[in-house]
Amino acid sequence: MIKTIHHDVPFQLESGKVLSRLDIAYHTFGELNNEHDNIVWVCHALTANSDVDDWWRNTVRTGSFLDPEKYFIICANVLGSCYGTTGPLSLNPATGEPYYHDFPEFTVRDIVGVHQILAEKFGIRRVKMMIGSSLGGFQCMEWALMQPDFAESVVLIATSSETKPWAAAFNESQRMAIEADTTFRQRSPLAGLTGMGVARSLALLSYRGPDAYNLTQTDNNSPETPFSRRVHSYQRHQGKKLTERFNAYSYYRLSQAVDSHNVARNRGTMSETLRAFKPRTMIVAITSDILFPPSDHQDLVNFIPDSEYHVIDSAFGHDGFLIEHEQLNSLILKFLNND
Amino acid sequence: MIKTIHHDVPFQLESGKVLSRLDIAYHTFGELNNEHDNIVWVCHALTANSDVDDWWRNTVRTGSFLDPEKYFIICANVLGSCYGTTGPLSLNPATGEPYYHDFPEFTVRDIVGVHQILAEKFGIRRVKMMIGSSLGGFQCMEWALMQPDFAESVVLIATSSETKPWAAAFNESQRMAIEADTTFRQRSPLAGLTGMGVARSLALLSYRGPDAYNLTQTDNNSPETPFSRRVHSYQRHQGKKLTERFNAYSYYRLSQAVDSHNVARNRGTMSETLRAFKPRTMIVAITSDILFPPSDHQDLVNFIPDSEYHVIDSAFGHDGFLIEHEQLNSLILKFLNND
Repeated sequence: MIKTIHHDVPFQLESGKVLSRLDIAYHTFGELNNEHDNIVWVCHALTANSDVDDWWRNTVRTGSFLDPEKYFIICANVLGSCYGTTGPLSLNPATGEPYYHDFPEFTVRDIVGVHQILAEKFGIRRVKMMIGSSLGGFQCMEWALMQPDFAESVVLIATSSETKPWAAAFNESQRMAIEADTTFRQRSPLAGLTGMGVARSLALLSYRGPDAYNLTQTDNNSPETPFSRRVHSYQRHQGKKLTERFNAYSYYRLSQAVDSHNVARNRGTMSETLRAFKPRTMIVAITSDILFPPSDHQDLVNFIPDSEYHVIDSAFGHDGFLIEHEQLNSLILKFLNND
Repeated sequence: MIKTIHHDVPFQLESGKVLSRLDIAYHTFGELNNEHDNIVWVCHALTANSDVDDWWRNTVRTGSFLDPEKYFIICANVLGSCYGTTGPLSLNPATGEPYYHDFPEFTVRDIVGVHQILAEKFGIRRVKMMIGSSLGGFQCMEWALMQPDFAESVVLIATSSETKPWAAAFNESQRMAIEADTTFRQRSPLAGLTGMGVARSLALLSYRGPDAYNLTQTDNNSPETPFSRRVHSYQRHQGKKLTERFNAYSYYRLSQAVDSHNVARNRGTMSETLRAFKPRTMIVAITSDILFPPSDHQDLVNFIPDSEYHVIDSAFGHDGFLIEHEQLNSLILKFLNND
């Protein structure tokens, strides 16, 4: 069940701008033990939510690395999203209307800052494991650098120490698609939804990649009409699905947060920054991931002192982190048990 | 210098629709020899034109595979484009207004059909070499299958025997971006240009790929403002550049022609179809091409009877066909000289 805390102290973003109040929505699974040493913090990716059991199928299960009988699992919705934590559709206390375009830009560090408020309210000073994929991995890295003793161990999946030009180019084209939809200029929860659907169809290319597309979207027969392909409906369907559960303002700002990601920013060189990483760390890349390919994990592997590296063999690209739960489970269980 | 022929005989498209008249724009370089055996036909890609010297730099040169002192080189602008051959901005004889949205869908076979009219007017029955990259390669394949004795030899670069779901997904997202720009509903040469700019920025991702982006678009310094990246300007600049020289209707219809491409359509299996290929053929793939990766060339390599295969090592992805002219030159000169 989703729960929400209200935080009425002004929260200053990295940009200097201030949110005068915050809602922070979260889910928990399982029970905190007496020693308070069974906490697993999950950081979610771009358009997901705090209900890990909803988007990371087959992981909040007995015997899994998110076993609710063993662990107290917590996941909070990210800043700027639309699943309970303050975002562009929240009321701006200064105007009594939703923020819409006026919701300020924010960084991954700001997202983590909001989660830290939740951890503090819970009195959580240390977690057994922090785990995240993609933008979730960004948050884990930042948290480990902002609060070096918070996590005993960290699992970083399909992610990167910085958003490279390639991934940022995908995001910029997505924002261009949202802007090209002139309804995005309106102040309405429905503004820019068509453009956001295009953005999503484009994002999906980067989430899946050539192997997954050619494996799953090949036309069964040589088409009667050469202009209509199975994959055409797929792109439109995926775009439309997101318009039914997300909004263009959140999508736009979250994609900017992704592009802001660089753990070395204002900290020194990448090597210096990552060498200060304290938690025991597991890094997992996916062979066919074209968004954050295995090569994007090299800085993490080379510089994080106490780390191990695995590459999962999968045809499903970046989305492999959602699909290859069995491979992940066997790797993470070993890591948790310190085998 | 661009020249144009006018063809006043109705031209029936593969769909059954008819264009009542055609303009066909073309360039030639060099002189036809007395034996008429020095003809090289170049087929151009998506948004290029008949002026090969304009878009394929350093190739229409003495000593090159398009040496105008040795060869009579001919290239025609493709059907549906906007560089002189009939397309959506041409006048519809039925209405006296430009076609705009009413310009019918067409296939690669239709594009070739139009070029064949030009070849006939010239009295060309056989060419020494036909060469094309990407959509240009599609045309070469179709022509060789439609008219098996036309080309003595064929060079197919960065192309595929069919547009796979992956490439078609890129194209569908691009068309979605054009549609999301509501000005595309207007009947005007400027309609949908913003959407087409988005489409182009997205296409560029597939033309370049991760290596090229990370090689050329890395920020020089850790950015002051984390939300502004060098690659962001690049994506917008590339989108804008196309809006200054192309139109959204042509872009939309040409991308549909790309998606229609499957040499086996209505011809039998892929193996049967390609085994009927008569010209001596060179197939060239590019290591980092993510749009038509080397694996997309396997059918061509496996089934075309008299063929040789080369893979060019390049970081520039699909655009490598425009950039790696030196590597291409050395391969094609050898092929031309039958070494």
